Amino acid sequence: MASLITGNTRPVRLADIAKAAGVSHGTASNVFSRPEIVREEVRERVKAAAEAMGYAGPDPKGRLLRAGKVNAIGVASTEPLSYFFDDPFARVMMAGISEACDATGAGIALVSAGNKEKLAWNIQSALVDGFILFCIDGGPRLVELTRERKLPFVALELGFEDDTVSAIGVDNVAGARLAARHLCELGHRRFAVLSLQFADDRTGLVSPEQIEAAVYTGTRDRLTGYFEELSRFGVDTAKVPVYETENEEVSTRAGLETIFAGAEPPTAILAMSDRIAMVAIEWLAERGMKVPGDVSIIGFDGVPDGALCDPPLTTIAQPIIEIGRRAARMILDFDGAVRRETLDVEMVVRASSGPPPPGN
Amino acid sequence: MASLITGNTRPVRLADIAKAAGVSHGTASNVFSRPEIVREEVRERVKAAAEAMGYAGPDPKGRLLRAGKVNAIGVASTEPLSYFFDDPFARVMMAGISEACDATGAGIALVSAGNKEKLAWNIQSALVDGFILFCIDGGPRLVELTRERKLPFVALELGFEDDTVSAIGVDNVAGARLAARHLCELGHRRFAVLSLQFADDRTGLVSPEQIEAAVYTGTRDRLTGYFEELSRFGVDTAKVPVYETENEEVSTRAGLETIFAGAEPPTAILAMSDRIAMVAIEWLAERGMKVPGDVSIIGFDGVPDGALCDPPLTTIAQPIIEIGRRAARMILDFDGAVRRETLDVEMVVRASSGPPPPGN
Repeated sequence: MASLITGNTRPVRLADIAKAAGVSHGTASNVFSRPEIVREEVRERVKAAAEAMGYAGPDPKGRLLRAGKVNAIGVASTEPLSYFFDDPFARVMMAGISEACDATGAGIALVSAGNKEKLAWNIQSALVDGFILFCIDGGPRLVELTRERKLPFVALELGFEDDTVSAIGVDNVAGARLAARHLCELGHRRFAVLSLQFADDRTGLVSPEQIEAAVYTGTRDRLTGYFEELSRFGVDTAKVPVYETENEEVSTRAGLETIFAGAEPPTAILAMSDRIAMVAIEWLAERGMKVPGDVSIIGFDGVPDGALCDPPLTTIAQPIIEIGRRAARMILDFDGAVRRETLDVEMVVRASSGPPPPGN
Repeated sequence: MASLITGNTRPVRLADIAKAAGVSHGTASNVFSRPEIVREEVRERVKAAAEAMGYAGPDPKGRLLRAGKVNAIGVASTEPLSYFFDDPFARVMMAGISEACDATGAGIALVSAGNKEKLAWNIQSALVDGFILFCIDGGPRLVELTRERKLPFVALELGFEDDTVSAIGVDNVAGARLAARHLCELGHRRFAVLSLQFADDRTGLVSPEQIEAAVYTGTRDRLTGYFEELSRFGVDTAKVPVYETENEEVSTRAGLETIFAGAEPPTAILAMSDRIAMVAIEWLAERGMKVPGDVSIIGFDGVPDGALCDPPLTTIAQPIIEIGRRAARMILDFDGAVRRETLDVEMVVRASSGPPPPGN
């Protein structure tokens, strides 16, 4: 039993500290986990004993096994981690999630991986009390993986028609209708749609069958909204090219090449994200086309960068930061109920939309 | 023993699945933790058994107790969590950290709290393999708290003169000298410094004694660089006002009010961050003062926003993303060594700096 005396051959345990300080194990434990409920005099005595014996505090891994809560929210996406800091929409959403976590002192674990196996593993092993899922992309897979954890989770997208999944988002159909109506009222009748993905791993012009078979119902809903309103203004939507992009530069530029190669190029572009819209503004400027003199553009999202680009972007603004706050509170205040919240969008008219050029 | 048979009174365990599928416990475990090393046929059999018996996979808390690694990096700051998504410097740094984590599939846990007790608790309880400390502010406290975890950590700031702490950053003295030299060479002789904090919880004009007693040695080093170079050009640095800000809008604006209330307002401002510099540009524009016609401004950091403001900001650029990448790799590839890395800065001359107005 010499090892118990020399002390160097096994780590000092909380029980040793309790004994040295002359308090119960429970009191010693409270000093480290809930110091506010321990009298100051006792707290100081236990801390002094801990310091004298080189005890660094309880191992969080052990605490975790005993307590149920980790005090952290997992935020998951199929995009790489850098997405959370690079993408303007994700950044604002994360600011909202952070605000709600800051208010209660909860931490955030970013769980993400483009690689399918790694994503599964990271979701399986994340030490969190619940998940917020960035279902902009890869949503169904994320939901499937997360469900297995049997922890509360909320999808940042109302696209899931599955009513057993808590979700928060905007009315995509209504938002898209606003966008199309705005451009029609300005006089436009020749349109193109630069869209988000309808299904995984695909870009290019979309067929009616592919739209019908959409996996990402949020994308389908936005297109439904555009087409409903265009039809109302007499536009033949069968002739409106819909180009699926990956919501980044390369595929958006390819889409623009395709759209403007046609005999009757559009005078107005309906972009399903501000990111796509801003790439379009850049692409048109490079080719000497004026926005909105030659082509009008409307985005979707309402990210801060849209106000700063040249010309400033007309868009359908989601209350991104409020969505983030509410999603975090759904996890932090989880009570077992499934919640599906729809928030309002609003149209922000800036300088990227105007009447079509004369003769159109 | 009836409970073992009905199965409803205790959760299904991995051993039960292994038995049902006719494989060893080790093989069953591999199906969930390292599926790529298990033959497909066996994998399918085990998964089918797991599904039939309602087994959701191993509990990550249990796995954590057995394995040493969590496969996650903690990123800690004394700022609230929203700082990581709002602050331009933090965002670029996080993008670099994310890139390195994405390359190995590691996750990120954001550990942060303005509240002192909560910060301590969050650092103590974070389930990570090591920490990256945003020591821009509150650094010494962060280091002290993190040290207790006995995990690898790296400070994002070379200011710590303590050689037992791994750190990565730029040569602040050299960077600041570049900035001051640039403005002196343009002909400026009347300066003001808008500085980061020298110690916690303080803003306002700084006395030589306060500079001497600086807690944040990074701030002190930048001032040393400015003053060394100003002296070389014959400027009496005792007459240069140094106003300590909290690197945000309110205190920076207060600093500008103070600086420009004097009898001999500066023709050039040395700002210790781009954020401060951009607030100054805005403040001057609101008062009808031209940058650089009336006042020249140089920042420090090289955040992307600096290129977009009006006029675009001259600054001392740190390789922020590379610092982030290297810091993450220090934790991911930790080998027990203390590493202190100094990276080079470079001056980026844009339109916010020019000669002083005639007669100055």
